[in-house]
Amino acid sequence: MIDFPYMSNLRRKTESKIVMVVVDGLGGMSDPAYGQSELQCASTPNLDKLAAESSCGLTTPVLPGITPGSGPGHMALFGYNPVKYLLGRGILEGMGIGADIVYGDVAARGNFCQLDQAGNIVDRRAGRIPTDESLRLIEELNLIELNDVSFEVHSVMDYRFVLVLKGGGISPDITDTDPQIEGVPISVSQGTSTLSQRTSAAVNEFTEKAVSKLSKMSNQANGILLRGFSVLPDIPNFSTTYGLKAAAIAGYPMYRGLADMVGMTVLECGQDFSDELEVLEKNFSSEYDYFFLHYKPADSAGEDGDFESKVRKLEAFDAYIPKIRALGPDVIVVCGDHSTPSLLSGHSWHPVPFLINSRHSVPSNRSFDEESCKYGSIGSIQAEHLMLSTLANAGKLHKYGA
Amino acid sequence: MIDFPYMSNLRRKTESKIVMVVVDGLGGMSDPAYGQSELQCASTPNLDKLAAESSCGLTTPVLPGITPGSGPGHMALFGYNPVKYLLGRGILEGMGIGADIVYGDVAARGNFCQLDQAGNIVDRRAGRIPTDESLRLIEELNLIELNDVSFEVHSVMDYRFVLVLKGGGISPDITDTDPQIEGVPISVSQGTSTLSQRTSAAVNEFTEKAVSKLSKMSNQANGILLRGFSVLPDIPNFSTTYGLKAAAIAGYPMYRGLADMVGMTVLECGQDFSDELEVLEKNFSSEYDYFFLHYKPADSAGEDGDFESKVRKLEAFDAYIPKIRALGPDVIVVCGDHSTPSLLSGHSWHPVPFLINSRHSVPSNRSFDEESCKYGSIGSIQAEHLMLSTLANAGKLHKYGA
Repeated sequence: MIDFPYMSNLRRKTESKIVMVVVDGLGGMSDPAYGQSELQCASTPNLDKLAAESSCGLTTPVLPGITPGSGPGHMALFGYNPVKYLLGRGILEGMGIGADIVYGDVAARGNFCQLDQAGNIVDRRAGRIPTDESLRLIEELNLIELNDVSFEVHSVMDYRFVLVLKGGGISPDITDTDPQIEGVPISVSQGTSTLSQRTSAAVNEFTEKAVSKLSKMSNQANGILLRGFSVLPDIPNFSTTYGLKAAAIAGYPMYRGLADMVGMTVLECGQDFSDELEVLEKNFSSEYDYFFLHYKPADSAGEDGDFESKVRKLEAFDAYIPKIRALGPDVIVVCGDHSTPSLLSGHSWHPVPFLINSRHSVPSNRSFDEESCKYGSIGSIQAEHLMLSTLANAGKLHKYGA
Repeated sequence: MIDFPYMSNLRRKTESKIVMVVVDGLGGMSDPAYGQSELQCASTPNLDKLAAESSCGLTTPVLPGITPGSGPGHMALFGYNPVKYLLGRGILEGMGIGADIVYGDVAARGNFCQLDQAGNIVDRRAGRIPTDESLRLIEELNLIELNDVSFEVHSVMDYRFVLVLKGGGISPDITDTDPQIEGVPISVSQGTSTLSQRTSAAVNEFTEKAVSKLSKMSNQANGILLRGFSVLPDIPNFSTTYGLKAAAIAGYPMYRGLADMVGMTVLECGQDFSDELEVLEKNFSSEYDYFFLHYKPADSAGEDGDFESKVRKLEAFDAYIPKIRALGPDVIVVCGDHSTPSLLSGHSWHPVPFLINSRHSVPSNRSFDEESCKYGSIGSIQAEHLMLSTLANAGKLHKYGA
């Protein structure tokens, strides 16, 4: 809870070091075919041993029953109320490709689409044109000149791109040009606030010029749809609010972008978790006292609906635990941004196991999974409160009130 | 949480059907004479089997330690914050007798009282005169003519009645005429807002004319006291907010009134739960995708302080479970609006067991009672959040955030 109103009185500078590993999509569900969840089925001797020496529990990322995306899931683990601090679609998409977005820029998610002769949308995804085809079109879009707003278009993948409007005096308070249905024309963007008319005019001008260019280049991708206009939110800085020197070690652009946005220092790193660990080892004795690491493979396997693959990815993660412990951090946190049961082939609302290991741990359960963590000494908490417990275990919080 | 700010983005229309049964006063306490709570003592094989295949937990209706009335208890189960959306006394009393109250009407709870010759209140309940006596008096009250406000008086029971002021331009922001003590005169109502002077004047005129009439008819019930002036609140509509076609099947007028007020369709129904089930069976395949059913007898037995009777009423409820399951709803929820321990002969603040049964259930406990549901996979939650978990289990919620 980063906006606890007395955080500036409570935070306390110490030498202690925290390593927080977010296992993306950590939680799962019992699959009838196996009679167990992925975590229960996986052989994770190192995590089980660590859990037996830790305070454990379950986090609710947003609210019971609410399935979070990765954005809200991580924001909550960093202590941000995920309802108060929701990131817009355009911003998250931009982060996902590591686009250079600064405060004041307006980002939108873009689709190439197919229009018929009357200008109605025939296919919102332009036949899912491949990336190399959309790269060619994006090059042209970047040559468009607008009357008084500058911009950049970045490829995401296939038919998807990000539009970033640059410079001051622009506003995200404009409506989408993507009507989200087919058989109708591209919507005209409208400003919904007094200061946003200039921005909606620029977006409509961009759309017209794009359609004019694209219609000469492609029959399939002859239009564009924009949605989720958003800006970087003005949020409390993670490092200064908690009084931490925080470093992020994450292979995937989106998590690097998220960490950068909240105010962590993002360290250079390869995409594998082994690369992340190497960076951790190299920087562990430096000035940083908080390290955020991100483990992606378990989530991907869950999204694929592949129970056994998720089990293997969790076992692979388990094998890294001794290396983290060998560094001797004062606090190790293993947690997840949301559950991704392979049974559901996607994110879910189910609470997520976590452990906090420190010399102040209160061990209770004997293994690390959804069922046993429910009986952990911390019990069920809002994910937003995990950072407070983490700081407490690191001795980094003073007493509240006399 | 019906006012989750992104509900309109999250709700999702599906074919799945939800049956939510509210067992009024479901929770209890261990009675020293039996060493168990009513639910633990009752033989409930069907509920136990259902619980063993469900996600279970405990709901806190308002806050730990707060004993809710039926109004807040139900509002929370429907997802309304019971502190933000409190129903006034007059409105609830009117719902309890099925009075026709529309938006803009002002309702108040009324007592017949006894006044002495000096006009001081001798008995706030007029010797608890019987209903047939008060019906005679109410007939006379309905003949009163006011200068510019129309009204209806409805009998509740014994010395209690409801006054409903009708028509536009009236306000609930007026003070009670019931001083809540004896030995003083009836209070003069005062408007507490700029627009409420007309209403307080009408209430004082009504009181004067009532006292004048009653003093000629009765020595015991020669005055009236009014309190809890209130209007139907302007609240989010249950059906449109959640995107449900919601039907209420409840025998008792108050629960029908509550369901109507939040925006459910109230189906015609007899007073017994067997009548309710019949209506459910008849309508299950119709367009409705959410059914609220209300089981009253357990609460009444608890209020009577009759442990064994409450046990029997719970066993009687248990026998209905197979009939509900036989319909094959995608989600079955069994929950309670509050606890009514027979040991306390009234509502209490104790958390209330619940179960959510669906193909996404995470079974954990083996039976359905206060103790075992504490170890359910959902754990302790605010009652206000139960609808979110219910919708999630029905597949009726999209992911929150990207």
